[in-house]
Amino acid sequence: MRHKKGISDAVIERLPLYYRDLLLLRDAGIDIISSERLGERLGITPEQIRKDLTCFGAFGKKGVGYYVSELCQQIVEIIGLQQHWKIGIAGIGHLGWALANYKTFERLGFRTMGLFDVDHRIIGQNVGGITVTSSVDMGKIIREQQIQIGIITTPASVAQQVADDMVAAGIKGILTFAPLRLNVPNNIFVFREDLSIGLSRISYYLTNYSDKTDTF
Amino acid sequence: MRHKKGISDAVIERLPLYYRDLLLLRDAGIDIISSERLGERLGITPEQIRKDLTCFGAFGKKGVGYYVSELCQQIVEIIGLQQHWKIGIAGIGHLGWALANYKTFERLGFRTMGLFDVDHRIIGQNVGGITVTSSVDMGKIIREQQIQIGIITTPASVAQQVADDMVAAGIKGILTFAPLRLNVPNNIFVFREDLSIGLSRISYYLTNYSDKTDTF
Repeated sequence: MRHKKGISDAVIERLPLYYRDLLLLRDAGIDIISSERLGERLGITPEQIRKDLTCFGAFGKKGVGYYVSELCQQIVEIIGLQQHWKIGIAGIGHLGWALANYKTFERLGFRTMGLFDVDHRIIGQNVGGITVTSSVDMGKIIREQQIQIGIITTPASVAQQVADDMVAAGIKGILTFAPLRLNVPNNIFVFREDLSIGLSRISYYLTNYSDKTDTF
Repeated sequence: MRHKKGISDAVIERLPLYYRDLLLLRDAGIDIISSERLGERLGITPEQIRKDLTCFGAFGKKGVGYYVSELCQQIVEIIGLQQHWKIGIAGIGHLGWALANYKTFERLGFRTMGLFDVDHRIIGQNVGGITVTSSVDMGKIIREQQIQIGIITTPASVAQQVADDMVAAGIKGILTFAPLRLNVPNNIFVFREDLSIGLSRISYYLTNYSDKTDTF
């Protein structure tokens, strides 16, 4: 399920960070930004930014900087955000609820078209402008709305079944928060999000570097 | 804020995945596991697993596999989980609420000792066994409970102030979900989590590889 050539995952993960900040700059009427200034805003070294962007071609002008609008558009095309992907979220507990209201998804061009749950206290509620529907109708709604990406925030015990139903209904990519490997056909891209990784990294750094601030 | 030597971030991010699965194996009474079998369970190649674990020394026995309990213990020490870090969460909206109930944190040895919010409808509520207290008392509780790691799930507009208060009270590491760079002293480790990265990666792969399933 991993690509074998081309751009590294680390670069692909930084592009949306660049993009979101560039949008803020564009909205503020800023036309040109140097890699130094962008790096300062993001906490990433200018060398890393230049290296990342070079992966996709020679952007920017030496000694001048990057043209904000142009770079926005290029990143949109690289990530594929011009597609305005339609997403559906299964499992509207607290995490699903938070994601349904997560403004950045919309800002990046993702459109939430369906929210699904099995709990009758949640079905029918309006969450971020969308009415939660029964999971029984998930397949039908995915097909009708032509939803391409599914997000799974259900308990782990039902995540595989939800993934199967999503795939059967035509979903192409799945973002899952369930702590297990999902079995899906080879042409479905699954990205497993793990909220404990950040804390583990902090633990690692505090354990190995906390008294050696010069190594940061 | 990044380490300059040693283990790559990618390896450090995979270790908790290994660890969580090894705990399940241990609980199931399994003593030994091969990198092939572990890889199958996790969707990671056995070569990658062997390479990752070799970074920390020569674990396992050729042709036999890894001793599950021993490997668990080694990963605990590498990540520093034996410290049983105390954590506090500021901002008990849906995301904060979800994190306060996230069982994996406890499973990895993190102990939630404080939940903080400014909303009087939330203050006093019991969330995952902890009573939410007013943000006004956050510094006092961090000091009293000796909380070392803070999680910020507040709106972006107050995230810097919350971080300042956490640092003043003695927090050493911060996991933040706010979409902006936090300014903190050099000896504080900040990890910025971004829930839109997974979706952006899916968009990238679907755009660039969706009709070329052989490249996955």
